[in-house]
Amino acid sequence: MRSASIILASALLASAASAEPVAVTPPMGWNSWNHFAGKVSDAVIRAQADAMVRSGMSSVGYVYVNIDDTWEGERDAQGVIHPNARFPDMKALADYVHAKGLKLGIYSSPGPKTCAGYEGSYGHEEQDARTYAAWGIDYLKYDLCGLRVLMAKAATPAAAHQMMVEAYERMHAALLKTGRPIVYSLCQYGKDDVWKWGASVGGNLWRTTEDISDSYLSMAAIGFGQIDIERYAGPGHWNDPDMLEVGNGGMNEEEYRTHMSLWALLAAPLLAGNDLATMTPATVALLTNPAVIAIDQDSRGIQGERVWVKGALEVWVKPLAGGSKAVGFFNRSDRARDTEAEVPLGELGLQGRVHGHDVWNNKELGTLPETLTVRIPAHGVVLLTVSPGPGPQSPSQQH
Amino acid sequence: MRSASIILASALLASAASAEPVAVTPPMGWNSWNHFAGKVSDAVIRAQADAMVRSGMSSVGYVYVNIDDTWEGERDAQGVIHPNARFPDMKALADYVHAKGLKLGIYSSPGPKTCAGYEGSYGHEEQDARTYAAWGIDYLKYDLCGLRVLMAKAATPAAAHQMMVEAYERMHAALLKTGRPIVYSLCQYGKDDVWKWGASVGGNLWRTTEDISDSYLSMAAIGFGQIDIERYAGPGHWNDPDMLEVGNGGMNEEEYRTHMSLWALLAAPLLAGNDLATMTPATVALLTNPAVIAIDQDSRGIQGERVWVKGALEVWVKPLAGGSKAVGFFNRSDRARDTEAEVPLGELGLQGRVHGHDVWNNKELGTLPETLTVRIPAHGVVLLTVSPGPGPQSPSQQH
Repeated sequence: MRSASIILASALLASAASAEPVAVTPPMGWNSWNHFAGKVSDAVIRAQADAMVRSGMSSVGYVYVNIDDTWEGERDAQGVIHPNARFPDMKALADYVHAKGLKLGIYSSPGPKTCAGYEGSYGHEEQDARTYAAWGIDYLKYDLCGLRVLMAKAATPAAAHQMMVEAYERMHAALLKTGRPIVYSLCQYGKDDVWKWGASVGGNLWRTTEDISDSYLSMAAIGFGQIDIERYAGPGHWNDPDMLEVGNGGMNEEEYRTHMSLWALLAAPLLAGNDLATMTPATVALLTNPAVIAIDQDSRGIQGERVWVKGALEVWVKPLAGGSKAVGFFNRSDRARDTEAEVPLGELGLQGRVHGHDVWNNKELGTLPETLTVRIPAHGVVLLTVSPGPGPQSPSQQH
Repeated sequence: MRSASIILASALLASAASAEPVAVTPPMGWNSWNHFAGKVSDAVIRAQADAMVRSGMSSVGYVYVNIDDTWEGERDAQGVIHPNARFPDMKALADYVHAKGLKLGIYSSPGPKTCAGYEGSYGHEEQDARTYAAWGIDYLKYDLCGLRVLMAKAATPAAAHQMMVEAYERMHAALLKTGRPIVYSLCQYGKDDVWKWGASVGGNLWRTTEDISDSYLSMAAIGFGQIDIERYAGPGHWNDPDMLEVGNGGMNEEEYRTHMSLWALLAAPLLAGNDLATMTPATVALLTNPAVIAIDQDSRGIQGERVWVKGALEVWVKPLAGGSKAVGFFNRSDRARDTEAEVPLGELGLQGRVHGHDVWNNKELGTLPETLTVRIPAHGVVLLTVSPGPGPQSPSQQH
């Protein structure tokens, strides 16, 4: 545990840095819900923070350790929220996480109650934001849930919409007032096209659909369904197709590779949702491939889009800084045999001479032919980066 | 209310017809959850049944009036489930619904508790099935929810899977034993690729993803995400992309038209989720277009699939009885202007001379050109039926 004087110093630093921009690239980290749900605790969070460092995840950019719903206890006579018995000392926990170079996230609702029926922030926005800042919280996931009950009583849909927007804006103002840089995650299920107004209430990311689940069809329906909202994403404000299920066991390795590749092409937040303390080497490799993460975190912050489809084959392209592009060839069929497809690169918007790099296999492909033959496993992906020109000629020039 | 002697007679008839196949075409009806959630009651159900007849919905095929979660009360000393105070007499309610020529559906979970925390059927499967049959229930939605808690304690994922399959099979056996034809709806969120084993546990339909919500992106992600599972659907056993949101207010008319068209092409169950008692004429028109419903209910029971994509334009085709095809041209972009696209019909698998019919506009198009120019509104659809040959030449031959 860090000494009191060091804690004071870091609190001052954070305060001084209040104008510091957050989520300049899509947030990366971990969240407790997908694996632990109502069983999250101080011990779980410490173990996940330990594992995030030990596994190498933190060295490739994962930084937020986010507590989801069920941490909340009662409000005291002054209305101040306290954690429940599973979180004996939230400030000490934040110190522990910070001492590892990581950041701590928390969860609440704009409604009186959260999804799991715990205390929400309705009518306590400023008080709660102050409490979070005093604890040293760096990220807030704010989940519509409990507000729906109030919205259902609104006189008109327009009034319900107004109620929702104002509730999100209230917490935004409260977070700003703390002077602490806190990522503001709108967990609002895409209601009323949130991508069109999420940034105006200070959202750094906003969920676009209902919850993901740990199955290929759920992941694919959500991921491949992110159509025509690309233009709303960019540095500081991201479309969020929900957290990762990688390593939770409901998909095979090929399917999880698709999940990671697609999220990277979408410039999606990468919040692992598995138990980091017990994950296999294969899961670590899926979560930490640096070239895949570089695609997600590219400084231009452009969300990729679908450019070509034939049968169950989809090709998605994400322009990257420096003029190269990430190109994902996805096979949405689960027929046992690999799919082999001929893809004319000109139809993907790749004109002239280009060279390719196979991202997952870390293999230089040299100059690509005008029509590329790709073989893609069932539910799998081939992920390339493609750059203008002939490219490196020898393995020593691999990136 | 019907007399006791008539009730006895209809119970005998149902028993005699125990081998009667159900869900030969995708089930059509209404379900309480999307609009009423925890506020469903006997009065609500009677009002919806009244409205289903009055609006003309019943005359085009809607027949199931389905009570979702929160009807459950306590079990008595013998373990028999009773409804709560909002449903004073379930048998009388079933009689009321049946007297209108409609059928009544109910809801439970294979777990000890339902999603909303009410009594589930775990360990009471035969008892509950008998109770449902005695009430005159015609449809059971069986929601995984409460079983997840038990599955989470299973030693391995394989053991959890086994637990789930066995739980669904137990209720299937219990339903069969009643001798009453009861549609069996697996609400299981697509876990473990349910389409591969759902029919083996007697499922007549199974949800393929998490819940839909009343927004275009949620509807589109789920609907357009039904890829590569077409072959698992057919008479008696259907993929279920979830209930309809038509009329609930979160989408505009064009978007709801897309919703209906896509569900029809998918041979999806059509379970309205709005308040039938207060719907507008526009909503009635969306829900009851007979030509759209004919596509959904086509006797071949083939689930349509995506055949062509260009940018935000997707074309889906469903083969129909008699050699014609339903063809949906969808514009997934929400840019304000209509999208105009040139579609070479040969690339849709439509060879030779074909004639077309514009379904929503009920307009004969005559012989179609080899390359069709379609203008599609933002988030909208153009839905055609296409048949070989030159087709009818005069408006009087319109179908």
